[in-house]
Amino acid sequence: MKKKEDKDLTVEFRKDMVSGDWILVSSRRRARPNFFCKKTAVKKAGKKKCPFEDPQKSGSQPPILWYPRPPRAGKKAPIGEFRDWFVQVIPNKYPVLLHNGVCAERESRGPYEKVEGFGSHEVIVTRDHGKDMKKMLPEEISLVLKAYRERYGTLEKEDCVEYILIFHNHGVLAGASVEHPHSQLVALPIVPPDVSRSINGGIDFFEKNKKCVHCVMLDWEEKEGKRIVFQNEYFTTLVPYASRVPYEMRIFPREHSSDFEEISDKEIPFLAESLKDALSRAAKALKNPDYNFFIHTASTGVKNVPYYHWHIEILPRTYEWAGLELGTGIEVVSVPPEEAAEKLRKAR
Amino acid sequence: MKKKEDKDLTVEFRKDMVSGDWILVSSRRRARPNFFCKKTAVKKAGKKKCPFEDPQKSGSQPPILWYPRPPRAGKKAPIGEFRDWFVQVIPNKYPVLLHNGVCAERESRGPYEKVEGFGSHEVIVTRDHGKDMKKMLPEEISLVLKAYRERYGTLEKEDCVEYILIFHNHGVLAGASVEHPHSQLVALPIVPPDVSRSINGGIDFFEKNKKCVHCVMLDWEEKEGKRIVFQNEYFTTLVPYASRVPYEMRIFPREHSSDFEEISDKEIPFLAESLKDALSRAAKALKNPDYNFFIHTASTGVKNVPYYHWHIEILPRTYEWAGLELGTGIEVVSVPPEEAAEKLRKAR
Repeated sequence: MKKKEDKDLTVEFRKDMVSGDWILVSSRRRARPNFFCKKTAVKKAGKKKCPFEDPQKSGSQPPILWYPRPPRAGKKAPIGEFRDWFVQVIPNKYPVLLHNGVCAERESRGPYEKVEGFGSHEVIVTRDHGKDMKKMLPEEISLVLKAYRERYGTLEKEDCVEYILIFHNHGVLAGASVEHPHSQLVALPIVPPDVSRSINGGIDFFEKNKKCVHCVMLDWEEKEGKRIVFQNEYFTTLVPYASRVPYEMRIFPREHSSDFEEISDKEIPFLAESLKDALSRAAKALKNPDYNFFIHTASTGVKNVPYYHWHIEILPRTYEWAGLELGTGIEVVSVPPEEAAEKLRKAR
Repeated sequence: MKKKEDKDLTVEFRKDMVSGDWILVSSRRRARPNFFCKKTAVKKAGKKKCPFEDPQKSGSQPPILWYPRPPRAGKKAPIGEFRDWFVQVIPNKYPVLLHNGVCAERESRGPYEKVEGFGSHEVIVTRDHGKDMKKMLPEEISLVLKAYRERYGTLEKEDCVEYILIFHNHGVLAGASVEHPHSQLVALPIVPPDVSRSINGGIDFFEKNKKCVHCVMLDWEEKEGKRIVFQNEYFTTLVPYASRVPYEMRIFPREHSSDFEEISDKEIPFLAESLKDALSRAAKALKNPDYNFFIHTASTGVKNVPYYHWHIEILPRTYEWAGLELGTGIEVVSVPPEEAAEKLRKAR
């Protein structure tokens, strides 16, 4: 007879059907006691020193793009001057890449290969210091998404941009250095390894099955229902079968689309709703965790391809990758994805 | 004219010549201020509650293997009773894998693939609570390495073991749950994705060049000298050209060898010296960082292959992977590997 504690035990390797990578669901690990008491105290710098309260006053360059605060019901619309900005996009003051318009070439150095780090690194800042994305009005999130789309559309036309990653770090455990809500955009001269593996996985699957691997996955998830967290007319939020971290969520367009930047004005409010919903559920279920999210989309060299399906990945930072994960690339996930989805469905 | 701050600026993507993955060296990121003040306070449980002071008294099973404390100069050798143990290997009380001797098969569930999580998870404990590996005597580290080798040799013969990872987590930031020094061994029913990528990279290189990719790299490193930290008769410690984290170190056998478990009794004290040296340098240069290390070796199904070269990877935990790393698989490293090597060479 199985011991009681073993009843709901899940210990299995699961293969990501797109990238081919494996993760390990190992629910017994939750019983492991911790003989350290780790307390992370975070002191926030506050509004006064915040570099994003008034970015230009704090030394940032003029905005590349800005949108005014959306009009509020029953109030006069802002007259459209810059002082009414709600979203602004600025060059990152501490960019990971050099931006000088020169195209990077592969160079050899002995047996090694390198590419100069040319590209863009921008910050998308919203106005209100204490209003993280889950607290924003849906129409405010829509403006952020429109800024993502517009900057993507402009940068993809630049020479030598092979991939554009849009991402958001929330909280110090997620690697944010500034508390004020902001997203980032990086335009890269190479297609990143994780992305190219998934694109190649999608191509392989398409060659064999004449179908988009993500569409097949979404059909199956709708049928099973176990890992779906939320749906609206255009988007599905689910906990992936091979989650990389506990309570990971992904938001997919329900109709096939390979390119985030092709999202229509009609769809944007639905994506805003799904994003607000997912972040709110994570906050409720996991007591306001820090988190990262990013958009995975086809590389800039292709458009409307049948083998890739853009999506947002949300990773709450409740985990610690140790020697096992670093040494194998197999992420050990202590909460079975089905259980995570159930908890997230109930959290509203 | 370049600005002063730009003089030593390194911003470049570097390709790992084995796995094919890219990292980004971006030294300007160091100037980025942090507007959070994060303080991690770690309270240690102390010896009294420590589950590894007397593992059997704390509910662990009898040791699978143990070695007595090495004799000390001028003292009588221990008489060889278990109470004199210095290293013992025990099954992990909270294993990530199920150990029941049944071979795992790949199963399908809809479009998904999984493998039951069968395998072994063992802990290699040393006697002294406060003596982490850099503080151990070289002959004590040699005993630990012998325990690694012996358990590896036994487990590789078990059915369905495809890969054995030996790893060590030091400190709570490195994911350790127990302060008492201990290493871990996991015998897996699949070859992990990171390892198979590197093995495949090694095979590709060998097919083209009829040489081991790591041997070519080691020859180049000896010639350049810039990234070498320490050498003795049998081992070279270096900071890899495409480091995944700042101050990463790798220890390679100088002569080609694909299999860690083939290490000879003559070589073991030299590896012990190199490991103690590397951990001591990291402690001095980085103020006692938490760290992970692990052994990468050929998979259990092959032996003495010309295309792979076993080694130890040491990753100090001074970094934070955020949305950029998680979304791309490109690790951003703010300290150029050449500068890291220089600092580590000076730290003794």
